Amino acid sequence: TDKVQFNWRDALDLEGQLTEEEIMIRDSFRTYCQEKLMPRILMANRNEHFHREILNEMGELGVLGPTIQGYGCAGTSYVAYGLIAREVERVDSGYRSVMSVQSSLVMHPINAYGTEAQKQKYLPKLARGEILGCFGLTEPNHGSDPGGMETKAKYNPSSRTYTVSGAKTWITNSPYADICVVWAKCEDGRGRGFILERGMNGLSTPKIEGKFSLRASENLLPHVSGLAGPFGCLNNARYGIAWGALGAAEFCFHAARQYTLDRIQFGVPLARNQLIQKKMADMLTEITIGLQSCLQLGRLIDQKKYTPEMISMLKRNSCGKALDIARQARDMLGGNGIADEYHIIRHVLNLEAVNTYEGTHDIHALILGRAITGLQSFTVGK
Amino acid sequence: TDKVQFNWRDALDLEGQLTEEEIMIRDSFRTYCQEKLMPRILMANRNEHFHREILNEMGELGVLGPTIQGYGCAGTSYVAYGLIAREVERVDSGYRSVMSVQSSLVMHPINAYGTEAQKQKYLPKLARGEILGCFGLTEPNHGSDPGGMETKAKYNPSSRTYTVSGAKTWITNSPYADICVVWAKCEDGRGRGFILERGMNGLSTPKIEGKFSLRASENLLPHVSGLAGPFGCLNNARYGIAWGALGAAEFCFHAARQYTLDRIQFGVPLARNQLIQKKMADMLTEITIGLQSCLQLGRLIDQKKYTPEMISMLKRNSCGKALDIARQARDMLGGNGIADEYHIIRHVLNLEAVNTYEGTHDIHALILGRAITGLQSFTVGK
Amino acid sequence: TDKVQFNWRDALDLEGQLTEEEIMIRDSFRTYCQEKLMPRILMANRNEHFHREILNEMGELGVLGPTIQGYGCAGTSYVAYGLIAREVERVDSGYRSVMSVQSSLVMHPINAYGTEAQKQKYLPKLARGEILGCFGLTEPNHGSDPGGMETKAKYNPSSRTYTVSGAKTWITNSPYADICVVWAKCEDGRGRGFILERGMNGLSTPKIEGKFSLRASENLLPHVSGLAGPFGCLNNARYGIAWGALGAAEFCFHAARQYTLDRIQFGVPLARNQLIQKKMADMLTEITIGLQSCLQLGRLIDQKKYTPEMISMLKRNSCGKALDIARQARDMLGGNGIADEYHIIRHVLNLEAVNTYEGTHDIHALILGRAITGLQSFTVGK
Amino acid sequence: TDKVQFNWRDALDLEGQLTEEEIMIRDSFRTYCQEKLMPRILMANRNEHFHREILNEMGELGVLGPTIQGYGCAGTSYVAYGLIAREVERVDSGYRSVMSVQSSLVMHPINAYGTEAQKQKYLPKLARGEILGCFGLTEPNHGSDPGGMETKAKYNPSSRTYTVSGAKTWITNSPYADICVVWAKCEDGRGRGFILERGMNGLSTPKIEGKFSLRASENLLPHVSGLAGPFGCLNNARYGIAWGALGAAEFCFHAARQYTLDRIQFGVPLARNQLIQKKMADMLTEITIGLQSCLQLGRLIDQKKYTPEMISMLKRNSCGKALDIARQARDMLGGNGIADEYHIIRHVLNLEAVNTYEGTHDIHALILGRAITGLQSFTVGK
Repeated sequence: TDKVQFNWRDALDLEGQLTEEEIMIRDSFRTYCQEKLMPRILMANRNEHFHREILNEMGELGVLGPTIQGYGCAGTSYVAYGLIAREVERVDSGYRSVMSVQSSLVMHPINAYGTEAQKQKYLPKLARGEILGCFGLTEPNHGSDPGGMETKAKYNPSSRTYTVSGAKTWITNSPYADICVVWAKCEDGRGRGFILERGMNGLSTPKIEGKFSLRASENLLPHVSGLAGPFGCLNNARYGIAWGALGAAEFCFHAARQYTLDRIQFGVPLARNQLIQKKMADMLTEITIGLQSCLQLGRLIDQKKYTPEMISMLKRNSCGKALDIARQARDMLGGNGIADEYHIIRHVLNLEAVNTYEGTHDIHALILGRAITGLQSFTVGK
Repeated sequence: TDKVQFNWRDALDLEGQLTEEEIMIRDSFRTYCQEKLMPRILMANRNEHFHREILNEMGELGVLGPTIQGYGCAGTSYVAYGLIAREVERVDSGYRSVMSVQSSLVMHPINAYGTEAQKQKYLPKLARGEILGCFGLTEPNHGSDPGGMETKAKYNPSSRTYTVSGAKTWITNSPYADICVVWAKCEDGRGRGFILERGMNGLSTPKIEGKFSLRASENLLPHVSGLAGPFGCLNNARYGIAWGALGAAEFCFHAARQYTLDRIQFGVPLARNQLIQKKMADMLTEITIGLQSCLQLGRLIDQKKYTPEMISMLKRNSCGKALDIARQARDMLGGNGIADEYHIIRHVLNLEAVNTYEGTHDIHALILGRAITGLQSFTVGK
Repeated sequence: TDKVQFNWRDALDLEGQLTEEEIMIRDSFRTYCQEKLMPRILMANRNEHFHREILNEMGELGVLGPTIQGYGCAGTSYVAYGLIAREVERVDSGYRSVMSVQSSLVMHPINAYGTEAQKQKYLPKLARGEILGCFGLTEPNHGSDPGGMETKAKYNPSSRTYTVSGAKTWITNSPYADICVVWAKCEDGRGRGFILERGMNGLSTPKIEGKFSLRASENLLPHVSGLAGPFGCLNNARYGIAWGALGAAEFCFHAARQYTLDRIQFGVPLARNQLIQKKMADMLTEITIGLQSCLQLGRLIDQKKYTPEMISMLKRNSCGKALDIARQARDMLGGNGIADEYHIIRHVLNLEAVNTYEGTHDIHALILGRAITGLQSFTVGK
Repeated sequence: TDKVQFNWRDALDLEGQLTEEEIMIRDSFRTYCQEKLMPRILMANRNEHFHREILNEMGELGVLGPTIQGYGCAGTSYVAYGLIAREVERVDSGYRSVMSVQSSLVMHPINAYGTEAQKQKYLPKLARGEILGCFGLTEPNHGSDPGGMETKAKYNPSSRTYTVSGAKTWITNSPYADICVVWAKCEDGRGRGFILERGMNGLSTPKIEGKFSLRASENLLPHVSGLAGPFGCLNNARYGIAWGALGAAEFCFHAARQYTLDRIQFGVPLARNQLIQKKMADMLTEITIGLQSCLQLGRLIDQKKYTPEMISMLKRNSCGKALDIARQARDMLGGNGIADEYHIIRHVLNLEAVNTYEGTHDIHALILGRAITGLQSFTVGK
């Protein structure tokens, strides 16, 4: 084994476990991310600007709803989807969020739970990035507890329409979205999904929040009911987050490594200090073992052998570890760690959000705890 | 995917990634470990008794030097070797140590660096457990720093023998060993290995320590010099530890889970508490992602694509995480966690040692730090 | 301030905040601990031997029930009591436990809740160490939950005696004790304390456990009922533990410091390494700020301005931090950290127990949580 | 002690250890902070606006250079200074920074090292907030290593002036400052301080950085040379930070407590969950023991019995713990934790900076390590 060199960018040879096609998809998207997204992110973040055209660019590259077969979608493996999420989040979690929402929270439910007509109508446009979707589940009073949903959908037999009314919050993409998949409780007490279109009477979408009371026909997603619908979407998105968060962590690790190699203190590079090297050894380890597990999860999804708990486990692990890594990286940059030109503080803040949304670190712990023990401890008695 | 059930004993389907042969080897050895070793360990540990016959039993099962081809060895994959280490350390790290020393520190160097005559003479007996070997590298003043070795080997041209003299410490198996692979500095300043046999004049082996000054002929391992020899052995052993430590962690996790399910406090099982469930979620996650990475490392070794840094990374990760898990498990058992009948405190103490030997947690961090940065920070200037 | 030197043994000048009397009591007891207890502990621990005469020696020094006024007790401040606990636990938690049980769990309830006759009868002998006491509260099925106590006390009006029957466990000192303060539920559903004497019919005291069913007259502690009785005792003991655990931590810190100064690796003392120095900086900090707070708590108790939550907070903090420090110290000694001659592994094991008994780390967290929020989260609904 | 109530806002009765005067100073300043600063901070932070008039308001309240005797300063105890820092940082670290710079880094060196004429000229105006000062020590290439300072001061005997030239960075208040205390190396190789005034030829002060090359007469601070000067200032400032950071932590703890009491999930307040209560128990403990130690440090400074290492220890402890607390608090607020209306994310970001400046967490560890061992490990050999 003399000739094998240790590669700190890929410590357990993830590369050797990918297919040629996966590598090709990943490489071409990486080029786009580094050449087209990275130069825009600093100012976009500073000015809270959303570059709508990025969706079209992504559409052209085939990374929206990439695992869907047909309807203008690329039909890649779930491993490839993970690799895409990792590359985009290496630049910024916000870009990955846009992609996740479109792919997992809008295209996935239409593909999985919609009618053929709904698929024909929406999927090709969504895949091209021509229209932008958003997802309404969380409500002002129900964060980790979607079962408590207060939004109602009432069927009007005469007009064969539903009247959907309620308020949703934390809707990524909300102010720019053309359509919104909204979840509401029907009169049978079970949740169902509806496709709402911008411009419908009664729909208002201020920043990150939306209130609505409107009539909708032909908009029900018929093939799912109960919490299985939104949970299926969230699991799909969480899988992408598990990969993506580690991409952000990799950026922070690599940037901190370069900074401490370049920065001379007391006559030697900062990277020559034991305290610095230990932090990097920890980063390397967690990124490597995290990615190795994401790969296996992707393979299991491709083989339809996964369960939601597996996704909970890796969403939680990736986000928690990535946040720790980003914080350590920020610390390693000293005062410069707070300057956005070095990008790390942006990742820290992004990962605070990513660690919280689509299931907080603690909620996923309790999901796993229930799977381990058979006992639920979400609700604690009054 | 409705029919796939989450399996908390194997959260990412490690099983599905093993070959039939690997599963078969693992299962038959697991049966032995649970049925033959587990019932003996409590008293053996309490009385610090070493059951010499266990080595013969292991020899019969083919788990000594299992990856060696020929000479009466089983010739398994490295993944199978890892699985074996995990099963035996699930019972006790001490048993795994005996196996590691025999396989990685005695049989491996003879096989890799010895003459055909040496292999013929020693390997079959070692494989059967007929003779027991030990390994002398660490010296009283040189723990993490084998380059400072003071043991000397002087060549006597007239008698064509070497005179080896020095003192070694921390020699697992020392008081019972029949042969010992000892490392000494030759007159050219380079380290070389020697096979010493019990009964040689000048060799004394009190508990865990050995002093010697003796003549040896035909005992030099000719095919290696410098630190590559002992480091090759240690890497081989560390690979087994990476798997084994997680086996110990699994025992602790499973035992704590069962205890907290059985123990009723305030009217509900302890396992119904959030603080308990969070601890188990963390255990499950670290064990799962650790094992997944050990599997990939084993595959890389089987393909001769590994580097020592990979082994450092996973030896360090497995030991550090296993120790944390064992401590948490002990805490979950409350007062009973300190009683040896519950086995966990024994694993805690074992893992304190395992986390330290064959490279401490911090030393492996610095090995990784050097691989990441190209700068060494072991020596710090005076 | 040029002439003020930093003192790593007392980083915030605790010494300057003590009274002359407190210093005198502490110094003479420290001498005893270092000269008389320290030489005995290694073998006592190895052989699990209890030196009964130590109680007499302690009695002579006035450290049993030291805060009690009269009845042959010393009548010191609570700060002095804390200093005593710290000195004895610097040697071994087991010696401190013996002292705590006698002082806080036996002499305290007799003094606080007993009749004048009971005080006259027992306190002087207990203070001299002539008789040894123990404390029975925990039951096999009720650890953190004494409200669920199953031991019963039934009053027999004819004989004016109580029949006490039940089983207790985790009774420190049990096999050697002459008297035992046992808590039982009376027919009114409220807990009450009884003084049982060895030799009473129906009392058996195997190692750490006791079963009994016996008649007792004049043995009721009349001045307390409900959980206030045992909780008052436990709070008294926990206060001593808060100081004592930090004494054990100090021993580990000092020993690890000396070891790493003496041990040369790669040509410099281990103590010259950043990774080592950081561990010691953390130890110094936690010990210093922990002790400073124990001092303030002692002053508040002396002024009768304390609450049980304060004690919970510092018992939990001291034990958790001391355990971490002991583990780190063990790690710093490498392989020698596991050898009992270096004493640290003994402290690690002791502190595992100390962190658990008289309220686990987690239970005290929930006690504090309730005090912070007004909401209890011990019981979680079924 | 039945009537003593546990006070989660002051768990070990800090209040009872303060003098009446200290309480009075603290209370009136707290009122100002809550009523005048708190309402302004959200918009000031969002818009990065510096309210210059705040300095005048602080001047009026007597909190600038408060420990200085005479020259229009309040002459308070150091404990009072600490209480002031805690109150202002409860609102925002930025306001505390402004106050620290003015008091510790500008007024302190003029008072301690300046001539009577310099004191008369500058201190009263600085105390009133009429002029604003800043401090130039850190250089672009020398962060944790001020000994490497490149800024030069050359004496011109003919004009009896110094020519000071160099570049400084990380100068808090720089763009608004009227005077700047700058440190430069004289021809004897020793550092000395100079008071530069805005408007001097050759001084430019862009945002957080300053370059200069100018002549200065009568501006040398004559009574100190070497690193003692800037280190004296930094220690003074670090003492304030030790208190201030805990003030920020208290805000986060209190806000997270209230949020989780108000927020209902699964039918109960979030605060009813064990995972939430444990986080708060940890917060309470660290804040309480941290403050108790700050108090003792203040008393030691007032008695001139302190050393710089004591300050390093508590600056490091307070900042590290406060940052942890702020991060946990942010996590407890879920998605809202990222919204600046809830203030916590602002404290997180502030504390990232505070934990880094005036000595990073790791640098202070090595300062303590040197004090503990007598061996320095800052420089590591090349």
